[in-house]
Amino acid sequence: MKYSFVSHLFCPKCEKTYDTKEQHQLCSCGSPLLVDYHWDQIKENLKREDLLTREPSLWRYHELLPVEDSNNVVSLGEGMTPLISMPTLGKDMSVENLFMKDEGLVPTGTFKARGAAVGVSKAKEIGVKELAMPTNGNAGAAWALYAARAGINSTIVMPVDAPVITRNEVASSGAKLYLVNGLISDAGKIVAKAVKDNNLYDASTLKEPYRIEGKKTMGLEIAEQMGWKMPDVILYPTGGGVGLIGIYKALKELKSLGWVEGKLPRLVAVQASNCAPIVKAWEEKKTESEFWQDSSTLAFGINVPKALGDFLVLDAIYQTDGCAIAIDDQSMVEEQEKISRLEGAFICPEGASTFVAIRRLRESGWIKEGETVVALNTGAGIKYPDTVKVEVPMLEKEASIYEDHKDLVK
Amino acid sequence: MKYSFVSHLFCPKCEKTYDTKEQHQLCSCGSPLLVDYHWDQIKENLKREDLLTREPSLWRYHELLPVEDSNNVVSLGEGMTPLISMPTLGKDMSVENLFMKDEGLVPTGTFKARGAAVGVSKAKEIGVKELAMPTNGNAGAAWALYAARAGINSTIVMPVDAPVITRNEVASSGAKLYLVNGLISDAGKIVAKAVKDNNLYDASTLKEPYRIEGKKTMGLEIAEQMGWKMPDVILYPTGGGVGLIGIYKALKELKSLGWVEGKLPRLVAVQASNCAPIVKAWEEKKTESEFWQDSSTLAFGINVPKALGDFLVLDAIYQTDGCAIAIDDQSMVEEQEKISRLEGAFICPEGASTFVAIRRLRESGWIKEGETVVALNTGAGIKYPDTVKVEVPMLEKEASIYEDHKDLVK
Repeated sequence: MKYSFVSHLFCPKCEKTYDTKEQHQLCSCGSPLLVDYHWDQIKENLKREDLLTREPSLWRYHELLPVEDSNNVVSLGEGMTPLISMPTLGKDMSVENLFMKDEGLVPTGTFKARGAAVGVSKAKEIGVKELAMPTNGNAGAAWALYAARAGINSTIVMPVDAPVITRNEVASSGAKLYLVNGLISDAGKIVAKAVKDNNLYDASTLKEPYRIEGKKTMGLEIAEQMGWKMPDVILYPTGGGVGLIGIYKALKELKSLGWVEGKLPRLVAVQASNCAPIVKAWEEKKTESEFWQDSSTLAFGINVPKALGDFLVLDAIYQTDGCAIAIDDQSMVEEQEKISRLEGAFICPEGASTFVAIRRLRESGWIKEGETVVALNTGAGIKYPDTVKVEVPMLEKEASIYEDHKDLVK
Repeated sequence: MKYSFVSHLFCPKCEKTYDTKEQHQLCSCGSPLLVDYHWDQIKENLKREDLLTREPSLWRYHELLPVEDSNNVVSLGEGMTPLISMPTLGKDMSVENLFMKDEGLVPTGTFKARGAAVGVSKAKEIGVKELAMPTNGNAGAAWALYAARAGINSTIVMPVDAPVITRNEVASSGAKLYLVNGLISDAGKIVAKAVKDNNLYDASTLKEPYRIEGKKTMGLEIAEQMGWKMPDVILYPTGGGVGLIGIYKALKELKSLGWVEGKLPRLVAVQASNCAPIVKAWEEKKTESEFWQDSSTLAFGINVPKALGDFLVLDAIYQTDGCAIAIDDQSMVEEQEKISRLEGAFICPEGASTFVAIRRLRESGWIKEGETVVALNTGAGIKYPDTVKVEVPMLEKEASIYEDHKDLVK
């Protein structure tokens, strides 16, 4: 049987199509391209039950992924992350059925590994030898490492303020790494020029069509892990928004296969108060966002002033009766600590922002009593060492700890 | 059907037995206690094939774990980590069949989550309200977070030199955290006193019997993931050695169930050159180790000058015709970078030490041509931000990158 039922690339704006055997970036009209599949053949050859005994990685869905030869799969075991029940936190915010999809449990510690695994595998399949990309850190780390495994050279440009740990990951992979004294949008301009000057494969967000396919596996997994019953609401911390676009694509694909039924979950884009272009566009009922001036947030992964796929994110929100909401940094950090204390999960501030959003949306009544809610935690808290401030008592050897010292310590 | 077929605790030194329904620490003779099961009942009620459709977490082996009521399971989705093929690195060291079990892909980013998940779950089952433990960082982070999820209070004491990120994890869990101006052995003394003075549950390595059961799931998973064919050699970075003890216990249990056949894999304890008490004991053919004076290594997790379970580690090595080997810090760091460049896996220095060991043991002929070798990577490289030193060129906005700049950058 065929490993993949991929058929072609298509433009969601002008409907032009492209061949998946060739290297393509954006459509000639400037829009990102999406991947389509032979749905009739998938229906004929694959049943939900076939998945039951497959390996717990995103490659369990290989028929619905673009890599045609399994020998081109570049994997470090990514995917099938846990969907964790959050009963104590849920009680605290009056959301009885609260779940977290924990994307901290993947190679490189963030969900970026999904896009990198599928994107790099397909790049290998179509003969890419050298790629380049701008990054806020985590995507660059993932792509550089998967590219190293694939034997593909990479050039990565990141803002000087991006987390140092991601700098180390990129450097250790042997990639060519540059810092830029600016934002990811500045890094993007430098990469665009480098791509043109040196004829590189542009792996920038949505400038290659396959990263979305990796991200869509989050949606496939949520559906499978919930026993093919869709939740009422899915929240996603939104920078470039590829994960949300991917989840929406996945759910539509599952519906067309007849594997899930009924109304799609309401999709919620969660952004940072000081970088909320999607929220602003949604509030103004627009179909595209505007560049957000002087953006800043400690949730570095969602500091994206203007996303190339903004129109796809907004479409996903409108089509599912979802919404967009902005959360301030202070609330994220407070929620992050609450999640640790109540559920033992040390997550990233981006992930924490989705839980603040749930709290607010439940208070406002937008999330109703008894609804099932899934929050995406996009990365491990350990990638953000500076978000927790601690003062710890220091003991000398042979010291004693008594219970009545309790109040001295955090 | 019963969730667990646990029968009792027993002492591997004096053979005294204890009830698993009560709280026990060490045997009255001072030895750690081990857990035993009703093997005949397991044989009757569970087949290897039953596992095929179970969730990808260590709880898939619940019949072989000590928690009797599934309601007591405290899980963050730990276990069933990937067993990754390392073909390029393998070629580089003439080991054709080289695999890495990647324990970076668990909550808290290290294999310590396994011991914490099972240990805390059982602690909850037997009514523990407050626990205490010394730690080099990662174990404390895992136990504090799982305890938080279980609603159990914890007191954690760690050396001031332990990784700061683990300090933040513990603090964010709401645990009582203390630093000590000394080594883990000094932290251990303080905890022993605190346990006695305040009547706490002692969760120190091997002072409670259930952590091993969590760690043994690494052995169960390796066997299952290799299709129930055992590898020739398994290497493990050894500090307290619980993982190695656990893997040995798992493989013996699988053999008694008839799920695996033939000779057990040769187990290799890998230590740091400046903290190698097990290696010294093995070289001197002793059954116990001596306290290692002035130990130091950047692989903080294996800086354990004297392990309580040293005799069990040495027994596992002797019984399987294994060996023990010490690796210097510089070689670990070099291997860590090589693994990143060749395989795209950014692992911790402890994990890297096992690959250096494979290289050396293959050179010496101890590992033979064609043998299948599994290395345990015990944690994610992102928990050790300081092991990679990078110098990165800084660009101004609007800068250009040309290929001929290649030689300027790493």
